Amino acid sequence: MVFYADDIKNLPSRQRALFINSLSGFKSANLVGTCNTNYYSNLSMISSVVHIGSNPPLLAMIIRPHSVARHTLENIINTQYYTINHVNETIYQQAHQTSARYAINESEFKAVGLTELWQENFSAPFVKESRVKMGMKLREHIHLSVNKTEMIIGEIIRVYVTDDIICDDGYVNIEQSGTVAVSSLDSYHSTSLLSHLAYAKPSMPIKKLNRSLGDKA
Amino acid sequence: MVFYADDIKNLPSRQRALFINSLSGFKSANLVGTCNTNYYSNLSMISSVVHIGSNPPLLAMIIRPHSVARHTLENIINTQYYTINHVNETIYQQAHQTSARYAINESEFKAVGLTELWQENFSAPFVKESRVKMGMKLREHIHLSVNKTEMIIGEIIRVYVTDDIICDDGYVNIEQSGTVAVSSLDSYHSTSLLSHLAYAKPSMPIKKLNRSLGDKA
Repeated sequence: MVFYADDIKNLPSRQRALFINSLSGFKSANLVGTCNTNYYSNLSMISSVVHIGSNPPLLAMIIRPHSVARHTLENIINTQYYTINHVNETIYQQAHQTSARYAINESEFKAVGLTELWQENFSAPFVKESRVKMGMKLREHIHLSVNKTEMIIGEIIRVYVTDDIICDDGYVNIEQSGTVAVSSLDSYHSTSLLSHLAYAKPSMPIKKLNRSLGDKA
Repeated sequence: MVFYADDIKNLPSRQRALFINSLSGFKSANLVGTCNTNYYSNLSMISSVVHIGSNPPLLAMIIRPHSVARHTLENIINTQYYTINHVNETIYQQAHQTSARYAINESEFKAVGLTELWQENFSAPFVKESRVKMGMKLREHIHLSVNKTEMIIGEIIRVYVTDDIICDDGYVNIEQSGTVAVSSLDSYHSTSLLSHLAYAKPSMPIKKLNRSLGDKA
């Protein structure tokens, strides 16, 4: 089946959103924690977090300025700090519920039943129930004029992760931590490892890699 | 276990790359097909494709200018067209092998054993073995000065997808098509649906959604 540009354009808006959101492939599932300058907390489900580089350690995400995540965007710009917390199988339904349009003075943490965790010297709330949590500092804010969305690039300045999922070589076993993947706007998936593959070289056949899980870094 | 900014900075480079690349969560797995102005083809595994918007339908990806994907970047800038093809369980090992540093005159298609598919009125090669394939037109090229990487934003101007994975409401069942998810730099995962969740509203409990798979849009 083929869809040309006009076929896509002519789809009803909700159908087009579900369709196009399916096409990037599986997405990351993260809860972004922020607060305003009065320390009122906010929590948003974001599926657009993407790796930008590891030195310095940078993650980007896309936020639509008039979407339910608009308070997240305002808080990050005003306070410079935020947290990114992996959504796992135990909390994915609550994570999805944060996408409801709550009033500005209502904390999504309380509304959906997740626990704020404040850590020393960090001015944004983490999600206690998440097993991979990052403290972020805003580094760059880029307006994407092509469709009037905002890209937020932040540096990872702190990582909390349970000991049992870090491997000797630095790999974090996010499958073992129960981290989920998202498809389209509303679908959540657990994962099963197919394999770790060795670094590819032109004249070498593809080789699977044994990685000892649960060893400490 | 906690890592502060200095702990991350002090990790050996390969270990930091595996560690930081794990932290965004699961990533999309796509093969990007291009050609140069002489129609010599090129194929790159890219795990940074991310949804930017559905109207117009836009996807972004991040490319490091001196990485093995540098020819992909040059070809896109020179020809304006490229393809994005989902990596599935059958071809993920070949897809990974495209990340080997082949010579500029050697096509990764041939080197790894995947089939070029040229479609009428589209000047970049698709991957025949992929079940979700998109034809892309370059819309914006943004230099990210924060770490000297390049972001390519393209519009989806054509979609090829097998009939049996499109639902009435526009959702594409990428799990049924065998699309894989990536963690860190080298790990590939199949997925299992946890559930589709209904659109969230503040005063409503979370509800699972029944979606009839295999119906045509």
